[in-house]
Amino acid sequence: MTHTLGIALMGTGRMAHVYGPKIGAHPGLRLEMIYNPRMTSAERATAQYGGRPMDDLCAVLADPEVDAVVIATPTDTHVDYIERAAAAGKAIYCEKPLDRTLARVDRAMAALDAHPVPFMLGFNRRFDPDNAMLRAAVQAGEIGALNMLMSWSREPAPPPIDYVRTSGGYFVDATIHDIDLVCWIAGERPVEVFAAGNCKFDPEIGAEGDFDLTMTTLKMPSGALVHINNSRSCCYGFDQRLEVLGDRGMLQTRNHRDDNLVRWNGDATEARKPLKHFFLERYDRSFYNALDEFYMAVTQGRAPSSTSADGRAALAIALACARSARESIAVRPSYQA
Amino acid sequence: MTHTLGIALMGTGRMAHVYGPKIGAHPGLRLEMIYNPRMTSAERATAQYGGRPMDDLCAVLADPEVDAVVIATPTDTHVDYIERAAAAGKAIYCEKPLDRTLARVDRAMAALDAHPVPFMLGFNRRFDPDNAMLRAAVQAGEIGALNMLMSWSREPAPPPIDYVRTSGGYFVDATIHDIDLVCWIAGERPVEVFAAGNCKFDPEIGAEGDFDLTMTTLKMPSGALVHINNSRSCCYGFDQRLEVLGDRGMLQTRNHRDDNLVRWNGDATEARKPLKHFFLERYDRSFYNALDEFYMAVTQGRAPSSTSADGRAALAIALACARSARESIAVRPSYQA
Amino acid sequence: MTHTLGIALMGTGRMAHVYGPKIGAHPGLRLEMIYNPRMTSAERATAQYGGRPMDDLCAVLADPEVDAVVIATPTDTHVDYIERAAAAGKAIYCEKPLDRTLARVDRAMAALDAHPVPFMLGFNRRFDPDNAMLRAAVQAGEIGALNMLMSWSREPAPPPIDYVRTSGGYFVDATIHDIDLVCWIAGERPVEVFAAGNCKFDPEIGAEGDFDLTMTTLKMPSGALVHINNSRSCCYGFDQRLEVLGDRGMLQTRNHRDDNLVRWNGDATEARKPLKHFFLERYDRSFYNALDEFYMAVTQGRAPSSTSADGRAALAIALACARSARESIAVRPSYQA
Amino acid sequence: MTHTLGIALMGTGRMAHVYGPKIGAHPGLRLEMIYNPRMTSAERATAQYGGRPMDDLCAVLADPEVDAVVIATPTDTHVDYIERAAAAGKAIYCEKPLDRTLARVDRAMAALDAHPVPFMLGFNRRFDPDNAMLRAAVQAGEIGALNMLMSWSREPAPPPIDYVRTSGGYFVDATIHDIDLVCWIAGERPVEVFAAGNCKFDPEIGAEGDFDLTMTTLKMPSGALVHINNSRSCCYGFDQRLEVLGDRGMLQTRNHRDDNLVRWNGDATEARKPLKHFFLERYDRSFYNALDEFYMAVTQGRAPSSTSADGRAALAIALACARSARESIAVRPSYQA
Repeated sequence: MTHTLGIALMGTGRMAHVYGPKIGAHPGLRLEMIYNPRMTSAERATAQYGGRPMDDLCAVLADPEVDAVVIATPTDTHVDYIERAAAAGKAIYCEKPLDRTLARVDRAMAALDAHPVPFMLGFNRRFDPDNAMLRAAVQAGEIGALNMLMSWSREPAPPPIDYVRTSGGYFVDATIHDIDLVCWIAGERPVEVFAAGNCKFDPEIGAEGDFDLTMTTLKMPSGALVHINNSRSCCYGFDQRLEVLGDRGMLQTRNHRDDNLVRWNGDATEARKPLKHFFLERYDRSFYNALDEFYMAVTQGRAPSSTSADGRAALAIALACARSARESIAVRPSYQA
Repeated sequence: MTHTLGIALMGTGRMAHVYGPKIGAHPGLRLEMIYNPRMTSAERATAQYGGRPMDDLCAVLADPEVDAVVIATPTDTHVDYIERAAAAGKAIYCEKPLDRTLARVDRAMAALDAHPVPFMLGFNRRFDPDNAMLRAAVQAGEIGALNMLMSWSREPAPPPIDYVRTSGGYFVDATIHDIDLVCWIAGERPVEVFAAGNCKFDPEIGAEGDFDLTMTTLKMPSGALVHINNSRSCCYGFDQRLEVLGDRGMLQTRNHRDDNLVRWNGDATEARKPLKHFFLERYDRSFYNALDEFYMAVTQGRAPSSTSADGRAALAIALACARSARESIAVRPSYQA
Repeated sequence: MTHTLGIALMGTGRMAHVYGPKIGAHPGLRLEMIYNPRMTSAERATAQYGGRPMDDLCAVLADPEVDAVVIATPTDTHVDYIERAAAAGKAIYCEKPLDRTLARVDRAMAALDAHPVPFMLGFNRRFDPDNAMLRAAVQAGEIGALNMLMSWSREPAPPPIDYVRTSGGYFVDATIHDIDLVCWIAGERPVEVFAAGNCKFDPEIGAEGDFDLTMTTLKMPSGALVHINNSRSCCYGFDQRLEVLGDRGMLQTRNHRDDNLVRWNGDATEARKPLKHFFLERYDRSFYNALDEFYMAVTQGRAPSSTSADGRAALAIALACARSARESIAVRPSYQA
Repeated sequence: MTHTLGIALMGTGRMAHVYGPKIGAHPGLRLEMIYNPRMTSAERATAQYGGRPMDDLCAVLADPEVDAVVIATPTDTHVDYIERAAAAGKAIYCEKPLDRTLARVDRAMAALDAHPVPFMLGFNRRFDPDNAMLRAAVQAGEIGALNMLMSWSREPAPPPIDYVRTSGGYFVDATIHDIDLVCWIAGERPVEVFAAGNCKFDPEIGAEGDFDLTMTTLKMPSGALVHINNSRSCCYGFDQRLEVLGDRGMLQTRNHRDDNLVRWNGDATEARKPLKHFFLERYDRSFYNALDEFYMAVTQGRAPSSTSADGRAALAIALACARSARESIAVRPSYQA
């Protein structure tokens, strides 16, 4: 394939380790360089995934071999890198969320307006084959007009408190995935939200003013209602489900299992090792598919399907949920920039 | 069995047709009479189910052969019959809800305080074997402390508008079942509720100021969160599910099917005729079991397990949900009489 | 209903206890009497199920209130009672098998030829709703021409050795059910059988020359192949399944469960108390339905759908299987009288 | 990794296209060359998968960069290449079956005796994760002593008649997989087999004296019984299942599906696109895992777990099945060389 894209992978943290091998495995992407302001970190990563280690941002963005950047740095640096990369004319793939504040997201969007490079936000769960198939069935009219959408996301165990502190809160960090999925499937965004949250699992999370157990209701303009439930703890694994009720049918996605073995004994009929451990395992393929969508869009000259506007809307909704949960009031999301 | 209870079945409407044959089938119950102020209605019913037709309430309550009344009359007459039967010293089984207003419910409770006859409210879904088994597992500590409770109740098709008009509204008529179930399983009642409702299926329902599609959130004192969803329309049948997440496990009840046949073909693997048609079919056994609980409690001299206080609390919560949905605010239920 | 049939229940053993309450529950049947040559046994049974106790066979068969006999006596007496009842002009429902030898079965068939009274053989599994629905789908052409039929019947635990001794052997006692089902579904009978058997669970069964673990292959005239597996021991309960593969689809019946509760925990996702305990529980409804078919056929003046010829064929096949398993050769069943 | 094995891939047909990309994907294997006596075929394959094209067998086997050969040539050439490669001291991975005749298989085994190079037979289904997990549970004693083993293998559609003509017949070509699996799980080989076969789907297959629909019974020395069913046609896809009944439990493997989407509508609850299309898709991972076992065994200096003796035994059993089906007699496999 001649149209390979030269990629500069920005960052060497957890998400960079997700994208590094997938860039290498994709036949249309060339991992040109990995950037970290600390050269030793960059070198460790290139030793693992290839490419040149870089600690000079200007050099990265000036290199003609770099067609695109994949931003996998800490969340509060995303906007800065977007501004710099857009100004340099590079195509941009940015891990979600865009930022934790609407003000900074609006800065990123202004930069993308000024420098309209191809931009894709990494809402990888859209690219999970089951989720994509569910949405395709909805869009094909298979179940008629939508009445209820429900999304489950329960994590095996709470993250380290340091992660929680910089995450922007549970709604902005995690619920935002469910929010984006249901809006993407429904083709509309809520006019009002109501959320309830508690801290049941890790008192340190509560001490930060954050939640580890939430339920969220979204009211859609069409009259459809949305339920989302999230938990930072789930003893049987990483529970990821969708259920969509329409006038003519219901669609559900089931959890994935590591095996297809059924055990019958005198006590029970059971499937063991219930669910794929966590998001790296469960969504391994969807991260790859998301990079592939970026590649296809850029090489075909079309806009990627997951946009900065989607990211802004999801953040506005997540922030409205957080306020609703704190104040126990219904809240209308601020969609206007 | 010598300790049979002589029963006066009050009413000849839909619910009387549910209880009539079950009283006949129960070895401990004797259907002594069926009461309706219109004798022709009473006669039609006794021709079908046995017993003497009665149109004189005083005669019913004075008859020494009548040990207990089963009240299956229109909702707004329940309280009157409770007052009369309690004063006459009869044991009382009353179809839910107690009434549509807290004021009248409090009148019934005062009557039961003054004349402490055995009283049971017919929250039949508690007596469904699957629901009962789920609660027993929770109470045995099988899944540890509860974090989330979810209840689905979706009906095949909207009821006639005349039924809707006298139903007290969707929350009082239908959601009250889910409310009672989750409180009964959790062993606690919500401190605050938030509900969202729309009218999507029958504009006449909306014209009455009622809803036919709702989602409800309950905040429990323990920090557990509850989700309930209800729909007056469901193309695949009568969908009745529970899901309870605890620290150490999750419990789910599955829908019942009429058969156990699986069909594989080139297009799909499928189970046909999905769900038992409606509540008469799905809860046929639970109505019988509820009568059995009444019989066992009365003959053993203990209080039945579904009380007037449960009925008052469920109504208070349902009314709070209705207000929440109308005003889009969180509401605290009024538990105090 | 005016066309009730007066029934004489013959026998007071295990199967009489199956039929006794079902005759009582059927609105078209009247339990007139229960017969046992020992009057005390007859009296004990009538005390439980009603009717008059009888120890005089002539009196039973001479009574004009007796329209039909339900033969639930030991297998080796079936033919004698059939001859007597047929000569007396009574309709006959006879528990399977007809007998353990073809010679005696031919005697019964001769009696039924001479006195063509309504006769039904109690292959109750045909009247199981799942099995009946599977066959109806096959007959409607839903899966096209049949290629494979498979039947599982695994029992929770071996029967007492005294039962085994008079059972006619595992193939004649148990496999005969699977044989009848697959022939009834396929609409044809095998031209050749091959069976393999071992004694794995109870050495006393082996000492009788009998098997407690078998696999059977039937070759059908159409070219369809049949597999049957039977076990006298099954730790997870009474396993009863069918699978039928046709040109255009496959049909499977699933085992029944006592509840619909699913448990998720850190180790497994499981359904407990797997299968209905044994045939009395699993086929409770099919015994009733079989009596109903008898009632309907007799009152409508048509032949019952499970005939003496079906019983003879099933026995001929079962005996061929037993010989095949003993001698390790393929055997052609002896269908000719 | 320093201990990479240089591989010569023998052959450029269907199976070579299975192994080519998997050799490339395995970090421990280096595809050195692809051999075909016709250089143009070899060149086409190396253009796709890498390595040098070779048409000179002597040069292949003399090359010091070649540590091992992967034999993916037509079945009737396997033995010749094994003899040559063994004499040249190369490790050998050979696609199953070893050959279609026991005489030639014995020649290969003699060659491996004379030149004891590492040898592995490609019974890839052993390396399917579900099958491997089932066997591990059996070996751990989870279900106690085995009583029944059942294997399903139904293919979507008959192969081209030219393939059938050189396949050695359905038992040797296909049933051999099930035979190997059940013997590998049971840890024993049958003392006697009985098989039944018909031609139902493609008359040309019948004209070759071959079958396209079979059922097989194996009698194991322990008394366990085995059932295998095979079909060259299956409208709902590639059906691959195992079921193993032991004293203390039952294990089943379920078919794989392409998605986890469940659809509920007014007619049915269904899962679409039932089964992974055919063996290339269904066993994609097991082929890779088989190569990995070969790599691990060779580099660790131990014997691969799927041996030439396993291949000989499976062929002996398959040939016994074929004779049994043709002659309708029970047959004892010829295990002695």
